[in-house]
Amino acid sequence: MALIVQKYGGTSVGSVELIQRVADRVAQTRQAGYDLVVVLSAMSGETDRLVRLASEVTPSPDEREMDMLLSTGERVTIALLAMSLRGRGFNARSFTGRQVGIMTDGSHTKARIARVAADRIREALTEGVIPIVAGFQGINERSDVTTLGRGGSDLTAVALAAALKADQCTIYTDVDGVYTADPSIVPSARRLDKVSYEEMLELASLGAKVLQGRSVEFAARHNVPLVVQSSFKEGQGTRVANEDKDMERMAVAGVTGDRNQAKLTIIGVPDRPGIAARVFGPVAEANIIVDMIIQNVGQGSLTDISFTVPRVDLGRAMSLVQRVVKEIEAKSVEVTEAIAKVSLVGVGMRSHSGVASRMFEVLSREGINIMMISTSEIKISCVIDEKYLELAIRALHAAFGLDEAAS
Amino acid sequence: MALIVQKYGGTSVGSVELIQRVADRVAQTRQAGYDLVVVLSAMSGETDRLVRLASEVTPSPDEREMDMLLSTGERVTIALLAMSLRGRGFNARSFTGRQVGIMTDGSHTKARIARVAADRIREALTEGVIPIVAGFQGINERSDVTTLGRGGSDLTAVALAAALKADQCTIYTDVDGVYTADPSIVPSARRLDKVSYEEMLELASLGAKVLQGRSVEFAARHNVPLVVQSSFKEGQGTRVANEDKDMERMAVAGVTGDRNQAKLTIIGVPDRPGIAARVFGPVAEANIIVDMIIQNVGQGSLTDISFTVPRVDLGRAMSLVQRVVKEIEAKSVEVTEAIAKVSLVGVGMRSHSGVASRMFEVLSREGINIMMISTSEIKISCVIDEKYLELAIRALHAAFGLDEAAS
Repeated sequence: MALIVQKYGGTSVGSVELIQRVADRVAQTRQAGYDLVVVLSAMSGETDRLVRLASEVTPSPDEREMDMLLSTGERVTIALLAMSLRGRGFNARSFTGRQVGIMTDGSHTKARIARVAADRIREALTEGVIPIVAGFQGINERSDVTTLGRGGSDLTAVALAAALKADQCTIYTDVDGVYTADPSIVPSARRLDKVSYEEMLELASLGAKVLQGRSVEFAARHNVPLVVQSSFKEGQGTRVANEDKDMERMAVAGVTGDRNQAKLTIIGVPDRPGIAARVFGPVAEANIIVDMIIQNVGQGSLTDISFTVPRVDLGRAMSLVQRVVKEIEAKSVEVTEAIAKVSLVGVGMRSHSGVASRMFEVLSREGINIMMISTSEIKISCVIDEKYLELAIRALHAAFGLDEAAS
Repeated sequence: MALIVQKYGGTSVGSVELIQRVADRVAQTRQAGYDLVVVLSAMSGETDRLVRLASEVTPSPDEREMDMLLSTGERVTIALLAMSLRGRGFNARSFTGRQVGIMTDGSHTKARIARVAADRIREALTEGVIPIVAGFQGINERSDVTTLGRGGSDLTAVALAAALKADQCTIYTDVDGVYTADPSIVPSARRLDKVSYEEMLELASLGAKVLQGRSVEFAARHNVPLVVQSSFKEGQGTRVANEDKDMERMAVAGVTGDRNQAKLTIIGVPDRPGIAARVFGPVAEANIIVDMIIQNVGQGSLTDISFTVPRVDLGRAMSLVQRVVKEIEAKSVEVTEAIAKVSLVGVGMRSHSGVASRMFEVLSREGINIMMISTSEIKISCVIDEKYLELAIRALHAAFGLDEAAS
């Protein structure tokens, strides 16, 4: 019998009525002849409520205690769903992260999964039980509760699917799949039937918030076939799997935009070896992720270095950089906050040449100036003036034939 | 260093402000030089909220799932208190029932404690940590979460105190001790400084809701000195301990009333051997607790049997008894709901004779008819017409010198 892991996010279990709808869907899947394991998040709003309680108690809550607190949310939903299913005559049983054997490292509030034992789940499946598993949580070596960070329930589902060698892991969420672009910006955007792990990873890291990045990575590494589907309407959703011919036929799978970056430019940097390390060392130590770096060709002995950082880290980055500027005797620092990054993603780029030049052409035709460029095997990103972001996305979406392509 | 186990009930941790007050008290105790372990209930109202959620999901929720659900409440309060204490610079750490090693039998929603390992608590105390323990919960042999029934946090505290050989177990609640009578009925009732385990047990079973009966039993068996104290005002509270000379000096420690009983009388019962078993067998099998039984002296070959059952079980008891009445060919069944039980409790009764006769005299002087009587070594109970209950309590309280006695 085929085994499916289903994961329902917070908006899908946000009330008793919604939990009953999840029970309907689980019952249907069961009656269609599948073995299944269900992974749940906390009710939407619950995690925020608990975080607020903690912040009322103390300004900087201890992280171990935070995990003890936050891990209660999923226990409530799994108990309620298991009750609902048992009330309908299905043999369901709830399991915490510990009971499933989700072993993590010791870093509270953002633990990494080290191992998934899943003995009790295997046993339950053998007995014909439907296991209902608390997402987002595990235990460390000391047997203390840990949590996997926001969106961690996706990771629980994927890790369980890998451990159980499930035939599919379906992520039920409030959107019905992965789109060629954000439909609120591009009304003609299409839902993708299939997308590769790599594309999905790039899309996740570029701000498409359908799946947590770490869970996509995990799925790719363990070859878990993922499906993203809406828990509110019927539909086949988007399949995330290994690259295939279909995916390669299209040069570009999707267009995304990201407003969460800011640009720093250090002007008049002495052009000598070791300068980059002096600049970026302290930034990296402060755990600030630098996305793009451009070093202008030097004029004489001086050069300019531009780079982007997450907008939330701008303040911290500035104070670090200003110190460095003095040390290395550069001229000054300039900040541009009103930037945005527009990106094309697609495994087809590997075999289709000319995607980059076509992208530059389209942007130039719209009068959009490109400030920075970065490329990878399956992605091209340009930093542009923020005010042109929607225009750029729409123009690229049309130019690369995503509007009219058949699904 | 002396070790104290402190237990705070739901009304004592019902809000962030109240949790901060508990933290104040814990900090004070610590600074006064004590080692301490803190046991908490869920925030008042939280258990009811969770029960309501469950009942919205299904009319008769599975008990294992109910335990998974209900055990979340204490995890929230222990995390919040541990955070608060850590925020103040105290080395506190929260522990679930499992982490403490509270091993129970398998009966969900009303599990009995089989063993308390407490290894992590001992370890924590050695490290100078203040352990904050979730009350009301344990795990069974399958490593599933169990709960100890309403008021089970008292039991957690007492069991931990016994396992750790603590010098004292203090139960903080919303009253400041055990009284000679309910102060809302007898304004001149006095707080008792000391009461014996046995007296406390009788008082608990008679409806004085200060301490859960099972926890008093446990404390008596393991000789854990208990103190009942208010978490809202200062005061020395009531000490529950082994009998001593002081307690024996007074014939009566307290007067209590109980309205939760109903009386059934089977009229015209054939007076032959085996009849009592035929009547009470089915009632016992249905888990209905029969409190008092009176069989009238037979007139010829027929007799009457009266007995009391909890008022909530009256309906079930009636239908069982009506079946029996037909089988044994008795005449009929009469029900009296408007009864109440008034009781005197005191270890001094063992050495003071004449308590019973004095009690009957006082009730008779007030014109109160006695329907049933039962006595034990340290208790005398009379069933009377419900409308006279307050009058009876006040008259007995005065007659046995409880009003004016020095504390």
